[in-house]
Amino acid sequence: MSDFIPVNTPLLDGNEKRYLNECIDTGWISSEGPFVKKLEKEFSAYTGQKYGSCVANGSVAIDAAVRAMKSVYGWADGDEVIVPNFTIISTAQSLIYNNLKPIFVDAEPLTWNMDTSKIEEMITPKTRAIMVVHIYGLPTDMDKVFALAKKYNLKIIEDAAQAHGQTYRDKKCGGMSDISTFSFYANKHIACGEGGMIMTSSEDLIEKVNYYKNLCFSKDRFVHYDLGWNFRMSNLQAAVAYAQFEKLEKSIQKKKEMGAWYQELLKNIPAQLPVHKTAYAENNYWVFGLVLNDDVRFNAKEAMQKLADKGIGCRPFFYPLNEQPVFKKLGISDNIKRPVSARLYERGFYIPSGLGLSEADMDRVVKEVRSLF
Amino acid sequence: MSDFIPVNTPLLDGNEKRYLNECIDTGWISSEGPFVKKLEKEFSAYTGQKYGSCVANGSVAIDAAVRAMKSVYGWADGDEVIVPNFTIISTAQSLIYNNLKPIFVDAEPLTWNMDTSKIEEMITPKTRAIMVVHIYGLPTDMDKVFALAKKYNLKIIEDAAQAHGQTYRDKKCGGMSDISTFSFYANKHIACGEGGMIMTSSEDLIEKVNYYKNLCFSKDRFVHYDLGWNFRMSNLQAAVAYAQFEKLEKSIQKKKEMGAWYQELLKNIPAQLPVHKTAYAENNYWVFGLVLNDDVRFNAKEAMQKLADKGIGCRPFFYPLNEQPVFKKLGISDNIKRPVSARLYERGFYIPSGLGLSEADMDRVVKEVRSLF
Repeated sequence: MSDFIPVNTPLLDGNEKRYLNECIDTGWISSEGPFVKKLEKEFSAYTGQKYGSCVANGSVAIDAAVRAMKSVYGWADGDEVIVPNFTIISTAQSLIYNNLKPIFVDAEPLTWNMDTSKIEEMITPKTRAIMVVHIYGLPTDMDKVFALAKKYNLKIIEDAAQAHGQTYRDKKCGGMSDISTFSFYANKHIACGEGGMIMTSSEDLIEKVNYYKNLCFSKDRFVHYDLGWNFRMSNLQAAVAYAQFEKLEKSIQKKKEMGAWYQELLKNIPAQLPVHKTAYAENNYWVFGLVLNDDVRFNAKEAMQKLADKGIGCRPFFYPLNEQPVFKKLGISDNIKRPVSARLYERGFYIPSGLGLSEADMDRVVKEVRSLF
Repeated sequence: MSDFIPVNTPLLDGNEKRYLNECIDTGWISSEGPFVKKLEKEFSAYTGQKYGSCVANGSVAIDAAVRAMKSVYGWADGDEVIVPNFTIISTAQSLIYNNLKPIFVDAEPLTWNMDTSKIEEMITPKTRAIMVVHIYGLPTDMDKVFALAKKYNLKIIEDAAQAHGQTYRDKKCGGMSDISTFSFYANKHIACGEGGMIMTSSEDLIEKVNYYKNLCFSKDRFVHYDLGWNFRMSNLQAAVAYAQFEKLEKSIQKKKEMGAWYQELLKNIPAQLPVHKTAYAENNYWVFGLVLNDDVRFNAKEAMQKLADKGIGCRPFFYPLNEQPVFKKLGISDNIKRPVSARLYERGFYIPSGLGLSEADMDRVVKEVRSLF
């Protein structure tokens, strides 16, 4: 297994070292450092929001964003926010931590994004916002979300952790909502190991975010009028994220080429491949997923095990939020079936998709995936 | 103000750059990286605990440590934990987030640590633990804490964020309790901008900590049986922290020399200086505090302003936790006065104490502090 191909191989071939060395030479390692400010300013401008606030990772970005929304818009405990059923737990978890109720909307079978045709039936007088998550590099169908938000006077929270630099029609993902969040986890288009950002064009929201993420320090530093957290990002993380941001367009281009290559070489296997293009966006393939056809005799878990045995690292699809044991324990789940996300978990997984993957590696991945069938 | 002396100047003159470059060369930037594991293993062994777990910072270290304690020992909502009244809000806040009740014990006037003679009167049938915080580099008087913990069957939580490598008699701070926490904030003896660690010798506790800090991912990765957080630390942060750990003894030696130097040059001013030595420890001067005598006509805030005008950066002492506006709002405070910590906030502040401070800078600090009176 000396030549195991991990599910993610980062590519750190820009100014990462130069900027890290600059941090050490100048002594700027804390969250007060210049790369934090540069990244906040430039990445939010690029995305189309007025303000950015760096935080420790993409999950706590959602925690802080939701608390800021609740505070600024005066949401009450028990108010509801609509979330995709097929995504990471951080989304719904942040609502629970903020005493809000997640309402799960099933996935769309082809794009794997939230099925926007199923949102309206979930709206109640307590609904305050729709949280969208652009899944695996393909944007959610936002026009329907915009229309519903307008019709029912709802806010939009946009988790763009899987869609840096991606566009929906002419708008950037993370730039079309009241507040948006990003992750810079080691496998993202902008990667610094652990890191995240919150963006908004609202001065009130960014002020609250900056307050909550920094322990609610006040003008008299150690006097606190609220409870926050320490969710700050160091200048070291920002230095690497900034170097990655400089290369973002190039990275997206490479991801698109990798996606097209996999599409070509994996066509006709008995599995559904990612949607390459919709009316509103081209996939930028954050990761390349496969959903096994129903007539394939093994499921995703078995496929991943077979591939692991051949030295190919894969990762499962998300588990349906409505079926999470912790939500059942907390009494948050309802009795509504979400069959699409249930099937996606059962049949779906993704294959090595990191920017550092070589063509030879991709060929080996393709060969082993094909040999499954 | 071109020659402003900041309250903290870090010293990054070891292997910081080398290790950061290694992260980029190897592609190891995530929390799975080797520096995280090395730091966990070696710093906890050095401190005298079996296990270590790196997290994003010292505040979230307490959040995760408290949740692990509550879970492993089966504490109920509303159970009580004794905390020092003179410390950062992160301590009491973590208890509140975990539905536990902080019970505040006033400070000791000379050491500024929790007055251990006042703990016993605060113990009730609901008390589950004593949380100690070693303040500004001088350990808490632990023998009394050990005796009370034994007598009342209480756990000890040790926040050693200000006492890396410090010893209480023959034991290391962070190494004499059921669970301990550290911070690697930019001004700490081990500094990486943002970072922290939890240590324990209990396998059950470390397992829970590692579970909660990583979103409660389970064997089936995206299936969650509990709610956690993302509190992971990147390999970049760990690389710098590890380089700093290698120099810890040298840094402590320098801090002690700086402390002795300030003691010598500031003696006889109308302010109380830190305790240099007790029966159980020598101060290692994480920061050098001053508490203005009662007959000085200005308070700490005014003194800091005067010094800022002369280009000397200072920072206030902690605000008494029992008087925090947020705790009053939440109905957590009682009506008991804690006069010592109230006075410490009113009269106390600390002067530039960073490892990167030059002798010339220290001379200027001394000159300006003396000229206050």
